[in-house]
Amino acid sequence: MIDAGSPEAPHLAERFMRPQIRDLQGENIASLAQLARGIPDVLTLWYGEGDQVTPDFIRDAASAALARGETFYVPDMRGWPPLTAALAVYQTRLHGRAIGPDRTTVTPGGMQAVYLALALVAQMGTNVVYLEPQWPNIRHAIHVIGAEPRAVALREAGGVWRLDLAAVKRACDARTRAIVFSTPSNPMGWTARPEELAALLAFGRERGIWIVSDELYARLHFAGEAAPSILDVAGDEDLALSINGFSKAWAMTGWRIGWITHPVSVGPALSAMTQYVNSGTASFVQAGALAALEQGEAVARGVRDRCAEGVDIAYRVLGPVNRVRLPEKPAGGMYVFFSVEGEEDSSAVCRMILERARVGLAPGRLFGEASRAHLRMCICRDPAEIEDACRRIASALAA
Amino acid sequence: MIDAGSPEAPHLAERFMRPQIRDLQGENIASLAQLARGIPDVLTLWYGEGDQVTPDFIRDAASAALARGETFYVPDMRGWPPLTAALAVYQTRLHGRAIGPDRTTVTPGGMQAVYLALALVAQMGTNVVYLEPQWPNIRHAIHVIGAEPRAVALREAGGVWRLDLAAVKRACDARTRAIVFSTPSNPMGWTARPEELAALLAFGRERGIWIVSDELYARLHFAGEAAPSILDVAGDEDLALSINGFSKAWAMTGWRIGWITHPVSVGPALSAMTQYVNSGTASFVQAGALAALEQGEAVARGVRDRCAEGVDIAYRVLGPVNRVRLPEKPAGGMYVFFSVEGEEDSSAVCRMILERARVGLAPGRLFGEASRAHLRMCICRDPAEIEDACRRIASALAA
Repeated sequence: MIDAGSPEAPHLAERFMRPQIRDLQGENIASLAQLARGIPDVLTLWYGEGDQVTPDFIRDAASAALARGETFYVPDMRGWPPLTAALAVYQTRLHGRAIGPDRTTVTPGGMQAVYLALALVAQMGTNVVYLEPQWPNIRHAIHVIGAEPRAVALREAGGVWRLDLAAVKRACDARTRAIVFSTPSNPMGWTARPEELAALLAFGRERGIWIVSDELYARLHFAGEAAPSILDVAGDEDLALSINGFSKAWAMTGWRIGWITHPVSVGPALSAMTQYVNSGTASFVQAGALAALEQGEAVARGVRDRCAEGVDIAYRVLGPVNRVRLPEKPAGGMYVFFSVEGEEDSSAVCRMILERARVGLAPGRLFGEASRAHLRMCICRDPAEIEDACRRIASALAA
Repeated sequence: MIDAGSPEAPHLAERFMRPQIRDLQGENIASLAQLARGIPDVLTLWYGEGDQVTPDFIRDAASAALARGETFYVPDMRGWPPLTAALAVYQTRLHGRAIGPDRTTVTPGGMQAVYLALALVAQMGTNVVYLEPQWPNIRHAIHVIGAEPRAVALREAGGVWRLDLAAVKRACDARTRAIVFSTPSNPMGWTARPEELAALLAFGRERGIWIVSDELYARLHFAGEAAPSILDVAGDEDLALSINGFSKAWAMTGWRIGWITHPVSVGPALSAMTQYVNSGTASFVQAGALAALEQGEAVARGVRDRCAEGVDIAYRVLGPVNRVRLPEKPAGGMYVFFSVEGEEDSSAVCRMILERARVGLAPGRLFGEASRAHLRMCICRDPAEIEDACRRIASALAA
């Protein structure tokens, strides 16, 4: 019997993983938390998660479904019919065009929605272009699928992050299967304009390239009901996949439920993938999501207002700090993304701020080369905590 | 704007899926249910699901977690520490060797556990050998990953399904990354003997091929506490992945929670994959699973006894029916798998039985060429329902 402890076969198993998976290990946001052990009273603003428990009425809906005995497979694995019907009503209202239930596939989390969307279109031997700075999970998911991730950097100029459409087009070739971005973006809060979405879509249509728009933060748009969406401009059979989920706008991160909005014609394929990748999302979790959609508009607006207030506080407190470089306020999302003059290594700055200010931030280098000096702060928190965190950071930088 | 209705671009989007996904559509167990529409009073025994609601104490544990506000990300995405600790205790007891919490990865469902295990080791350009007759999702998951599925058929001789180890070895080549099977198997209830598991493991160790053992039905073993497991014979760093879940033994199909038991050395990779494929399993679902493990031994035994009784009833009623060919009773699982003399097309027989007997069975052809004439009946049901279904089938075949 081979034994892990035997000198003949140290970590035998690890050597037989496929190569793409072997590369995956390394620094990520989760591993940052390790740093904080042993430091008391840390304000941890590194994750993309608010501090509010899911509202009662949503939790009650899930508990009621459990009490009713809804513990069996959901017959339609692509989504519990009352939920996909409610998503149709919700999206038709939000996007001003008919989007039927046959265009949505429910997934166990927004991350799985991204993964399934990518696995629908990309594979080994192809590539996927994505906009940076970007939530690192997008790049890693492309990698897990076996495709080549190709970054196109947005550039910060005059305090504004700008998309260079020509650069995106240049990055695409005959093997490109998708262009992926988040809008409002994680981490910058950059938000695609309708004409940018339309231009990407037209390019994709011409070249047979899918536009995958991660819209988990769409309801956290500070200047209206929702950020511009690919669904506002895409035709029913356009090469557009919108990724969404309940985590951010309804304070449901721990529920693991999201959805993909897709052309009707790929529904049967996504149904099959759902069956063979996850076999559906838990029945009572979908019951909670239904309550969020039907009665949760005030929740989504409340989360948005909390984020907008968090941005305002951070800009008010950090703005006057000598070395802090803040871009223009983000148009949406749950982050403030800034840099510190003279500091190029975001990991080192994060460690310094953690030790001196006892505030946990996420280093921009995880989000791409263009943001190697930046720091991400989650501001979907109690305003007093944001104020405290920013004051601590200001003191640490002044020291 | 391209429109689905325009003649220039009918189903534009569908044409741009990747080739493997395009192939996925077709007959499956879920699509069978369509047949039953319009037929009243059908006993639907085609799915692999019992008829009992998840026990109260498990549902209460999930509702209590919701009430306590456990609605955030689980910090360790590979599993909530109390659950992975309980899995360690449970598996150490069951398999008679120390299996620590660093050897388990919790997944949103047993299907996702299979998928992640395969995606850990296989990819385009490789192949995966699997034993047939087999739950079709295994073959389809290999296909979604992009690897070549290679079937090795068990053969029924003298009423016994037998594994031909030499045939398994012959099917493997330098591109084989895994050998997959279910034990007790879905659909036959065939159960690997410890010496067969050890032989497969030794072969895999020699050739660098993973043994992926789907053990979701392990607790539904009629002659003891659990069926022989790959974990009984594998060393800590052997190339063994055991797939498991709460669906079958604890009546939790709708909860979507499973786990993989793996060598410690691939834990970091499975942690990364968890992050980039699903970002963890819902917190309160894990709380329910913990209750199932800690207080659910009687539940698992009860489900097992219900299945054993269902098998006995089916054999008692169908045994004397002239044209019914029953193999030896299965050693475990939740199915009776039989054929009808003179009938070679299982889909046609299923339709006939549905129409004449109003009993829904799953056609063996979905499970592989070796069972093209077989029928699968789920017997994890009220004994009276199994008796009624078998009597109806007997009458239909006599007619």
